[in-house]
Amino acid sequence: MINLRNYIDHTLLKATATEKDIELLCKEAVDNRLFAVCVNPIYVKHAKKCIDGSDVKVCTVVGFPLGASSPAAIGFEARKAIEDGADEIDFVLAVGAFLSGNMSLVRDCIKSIVNEVNGQALIKMIIETCYLTNEQIIEACKLAVEFNLDFVKTSTGFGSGGATVEHVKLMAETVGDNCQVKASGGIGTYEDAISLINAGADRLGTSRTLTIINKESDK
Amino acid sequence: MINLRNYIDHTLLKATATEKDIELLCKEAVDNRLFAVCVNPIYVKHAKKCIDGSDVKVCTVVGFPLGASSPAAIGFEARKAIEDGADEIDFVLAVGAFLSGNMSLVRDCIKSIVNEVNGQALIKMIIETCYLTNEQIIEACKLAVEFNLDFVKTSTGFGSGGATVEHVKLMAETVGDNCQVKASGGIGTYEDAISLINAGADRLGTSRTLTIINKESDK
Repeated sequence: MINLRNYIDHTLLKATATEKDIELLCKEAVDNRLFAVCVNPIYVKHAKKCIDGSDVKVCTVVGFPLGASSPAAIGFEARKAIEDGADEIDFVLAVGAFLSGNMSLVRDCIKSIVNEVNGQALIKMIIETCYLTNEQIIEACKLAVEFNLDFVKTSTGFGSGGATVEHVKLMAETVGDNCQVKASGGIGTYEDAISLINAGADRLGTSRTLTIINKESDK
Repeated sequence: MINLRNYIDHTLLKATATEKDIELLCKEAVDNRLFAVCVNPIYVKHAKKCIDGSDVKVCTVVGFPLGASSPAAIGFEARKAIEDGADEIDFVLAVGAFLSGNMSLVRDCIKSIVNEVNGQALIKMIIETCYLTNEQIIEACKLAVEFNLDFVKTSTGFGSGGATVEHVKLMAETVGDNCQVKASGGIGTYEDAISLINAGADRLGTSRTLTIINKESDK
């Protein structure tokens, strides 16, 4: 029996999210014993205070959501987030550079993150599957394995589409035991959550956690 | 007679923009003697090369589009962008902190940008008017004046709305001669452009430049 709560990064990344919204997010995560909260870097310190004394982790996002910051800037942003208390760093693959075939620039971005994080946080690479072909998804997953990243993650939630069962399956097959898979973007129901886990997701990012876990309790 | 070309930051900020797209953007800007190109930080170096020998400026965006990076991270990102060749830095107001009433955090973000830019580039503060009341727009504009910023700018183009004549008027009235106003987001026609300039805009950010200036040539 799957305990969904252990899978969930309870997420709030909207530009308009306020400190009070973050406090509520953290309270919900603590009360429901969720895996983590996922907040923007400006709120990492605040979230860290709010979850204090619990087992809930603080996850944040870097180079988000466009994957178009410079290599130096995303590395620096990640390091500052860790100093602020982040346990996990979800950074966005340099999608435009990747689509340009400029793999040297793509690798520079990943290297910068890996060097600056320096083993002090889990690293998830968001590959924004909605913009990639299946072949490109496989290529991006192989990069994650090459750099020993902890996770490949499907989506920012700000692109043209979110996690699909087909993409999660492909990602899980490609990375095998070398990486975990986080599904995110558009996960709105208990059924979505279960299907994505069955497809190979080890973690779920969603803002609709309460809807999902309340449905679970009915089962 | 308004020469629209002098007003336009020719803009491409999509996650999926490739190096070839940036090359075309720059060629269009040079050929049409536009004011600037506006590109993501990862493409500043490339754009700088592409506009070399022309008067076209390179503008970039920082803490974009959510305005939710940490103060240290946006300052660093701005400084690196200037090292890469950016002439103008459009950063996003910390909208969530602003809506939380945490003005100390909002000011820390602006201070970080101002200190790191250190007079080496123009600074525009994007206030994302679609999320603000008129009173909040006035308050944000006063902050820009307080910090001697060069511009207040309406929108990222990634929020729930873009530039409106009403907001541009309000911004121009509030900042007076202390700041310039950049209108951006959803500017798609020659008529839009002229209305926004008549409302007080000193600069326009748009990706639909060719449609706009070709219509101008017909006049």
